[in-house]
Amino acid sequence: MDLDLDLDLDGAALTARLVDVPSVSGEEGPLADAIERALQPLAHLSVCRDGDTIVARTELGRPERVILAGHIDTVPVAGNLPSRADGARLYGCGTSDMKSGVAVQLRLAAHLPAPSRDVTYVFYECEEVAAERNGLLRLSRNTPELLAGDFAVLMEPSAGRIEGGCQGTLRAEVTAAGQRAHTARSWMGRNAIHEADGILAVLRAYTPREPEVDGLRYHEGLNAVAIRGGVAGNVVPDECVVTVNYRFAPDLDGQQAADVVRSLFAAWPVTVIDVADGARPGLGHPAAAAFVATVGAGLGPPRAKLGWTDVARFSALGIPAVNYGPGLPELAHTAGEYVETPAIADCEARLRAWLALSRRFSAVPTGPGRRRAGSGPCAGSRWRPDTRPTPRRGGGTGP
Amino acid sequence: MDLDLDLDLDGAALTARLVDVPSVSGEEGPLADAIERALQPLAHLSVCRDGDTIVARTELGRPERVILAGHIDTVPVAGNLPSRADGARLYGCGTSDMKSGVAVQLRLAAHLPAPSRDVTYVFYECEEVAAERNGLLRLSRNTPELLAGDFAVLMEPSAGRIEGGCQGTLRAEVTAAGQRAHTARSWMGRNAIHEADGILAVLRAYTPREPEVDGLRYHEGLNAVAIRGGVAGNVVPDECVVTVNYRFAPDLDGQQAADVVRSLFAAWPVTVIDVADGARPGLGHPAAAAFVATVGAGLGPPRAKLGWTDVARFSALGIPAVNYGPGLPELAHTAGEYVETPAIADCEARLRAWLALSRRFSAVPTGPGRRRAGSGPCAGSRWRPDTRPTPRRGGGTGP
Repeated sequence: MDLDLDLDLDGAALTARLVDVPSVSGEEGPLADAIERALQPLAHLSVCRDGDTIVARTELGRPERVILAGHIDTVPVAGNLPSRADGARLYGCGTSDMKSGVAVQLRLAAHLPAPSRDVTYVFYECEEVAAERNGLLRLSRNTPELLAGDFAVLMEPSAGRIEGGCQGTLRAEVTAAGQRAHTARSWMGRNAIHEADGILAVLRAYTPREPEVDGLRYHEGLNAVAIRGGVAGNVVPDECVVTVNYRFAPDLDGQQAADVVRSLFAAWPVTVIDVADGARPGLGHPAAAAFVATVGAGLGPPRAKLGWTDVARFSALGIPAVNYGPGLPELAHTAGEYVETPAIADCEARLRAWLALSRRFSAVPTGPGRRRAGSGPCAGSRWRPDTRPTPRRGGGTGP
Repeated sequence: MDLDLDLDLDGAALTARLVDVPSVSGEEGPLADAIERALQPLAHLSVCRDGDTIVARTELGRPERVILAGHIDTVPVAGNLPSRADGARLYGCGTSDMKSGVAVQLRLAAHLPAPSRDVTYVFYECEEVAAERNGLLRLSRNTPELLAGDFAVLMEPSAGRIEGGCQGTLRAEVTAAGQRAHTARSWMGRNAIHEADGILAVLRAYTPREPEVDGLRYHEGLNAVAIRGGVAGNVVPDECVVTVNYRFAPDLDGQQAADVVRSLFAAWPVTVIDVADGARPGLGHPAAAAFVATVGAGLGPPRAKLGWTDVARFSALGIPAVNYGPGLPELAHTAGEYVETPAIADCEARLRAWLALSRRFSAVPTGPGRRRAGSGPCAGSRWRPDTRPTPRRGGGTGP
């Protein structure tokens, strides 16, 4: 049976409805169907779907375009469905991370037919699992024009605070070498695990940088996240590998972060195994400044996002981005997850005020020529491609 | 087809014959059959078999009984069969470890019908694999009377040198604890891998004891043989476990060795995961002294065995023991394994001289009553049980 979403429900009730459609990563189909079905009748939106990722855009020709993005998947259910209201709290898997944010997106998409900025609403799949399955990453690689915009808001749980940009993350293996020998004659060899104490000494002596980037104070970190060594119970080991994780502020890119790690561990071979650039908060952009002034009024100043989030995907596309959502981040992925329902309405109200903010718009053509059927994967949907030229495709859509 | 062993072959030729019967641990059956068949016709021996372990004993009523023991299994063949002679070297799997020693045992068993000391020849299975499969361990537990004696020689490769006793070995896990946190906010936690640097510092500062035990100088060792820690690539780990291996001289028992380790690592939880007592060389016993004087003439003084060997099983039975064999220990378990064939004849000659050494014997009854059929697993074999009372069984044999 098809699931219907009533976007006239208030944010808390809509969150409960979304939570009650389980959507563990990889199983977002029914929820994606419901979202697509709810948005497609809305004449002010162009809707496109790629897999279980839905993009809905206003096409008002506004001089600015902003993006509100949220993932629709959750971590595995932990006996915490269906949702359960208890006073001002709504409990259940995904209430904070991040179906309350998705509810706000849907409410705004439905009830703001003429925002002062064009808006792209992105509802994407598989954020909670390996990056290669992430719907936002797929869009950014295959149809970056769908993500075109001047500023993005990722509606991950941030306890209603604005968290700017994100730090990057790098993992590297630092290897201490030795020489094998029988442990009964260990002086014939050199113990690589014993040698690794020098690596640990570097980690313990490390003092984190706390740079200010675009007005926000970041806080770096360097940690061993794994250590392994050993050949057999009677063998002096010839190798000990320490995996370190460097969280770096967005004033460095991945290459610079790798240089930092190589320099700290200059005495040992260093192999970078993965790196993800961070994202600058970009709060100097007019859309961002307006966001902070409007949305952030009374919330306290924006703070730096220390963890890595999908805002970095926008940053890679040249779009400054912030994290802002009604969920409570410390409850994410816990069985006792809940959201404070007043925060949902508050978040919606703040975003609505920002998106409705009066500006001097440039004139935009609105004739019948603007609505035409697309081709490719979105043919037949109400999708119309962005008219800006892109390097990846002509007028078609999709990968 | 039954394999026949001609015990009139010289030691080198017999070694080649033994090597050419593959006997990787667990597959000793054909070789054990051949050994049993070769020894059973010899009227001066009582032969018993348990699994693929063969025990052959003279029953001359001598006031001393000595044991010559060797394992008949090998590590997996590494393309190094059949054996190949090249000048004074015989190449092949098991040439050094330790079918050359087994050849010496068999030659002595066949050609010394009236040694001056009663001799127990033990040919046992599964030395190269997990202890619970070890044939000597099984005998020591189930029929220790089969291993009764005053002194034992384990014919493991020792390059023709006498190596006394063996060091014990203990493995323990030393655990550094921490507190989990996201690595983006690592100051919320405590990194257990970083904490483990204190454990490594103890290992690096360790100064080995080199005690003299029964006239031999041992050399202890304390090494990390494994290290593990890590929860996920973005988590400050809450546990890091260092597995240490303490090789301790035989003036300590396993309990004392554990006390040493617990004392060194008093700042951390220590879990002993396995411990095997060493063995004192016992060179003060008359049989041992005679062994050193005769067998060791011109070889240089006996030296301490630093690795753990099955001499410890004899020690556990109260029997002093040494390691002495013609193989080259550094070639054991290598594809290029060989034995110097002159060492085989030399070893045999030295042991023959020792076993033939004139002593003043006590009178021993030799009447027909000494030969009687046993019962239990060895019934029908030429086994006769030791007449000394034992705590484990009456007159029967076997487990």
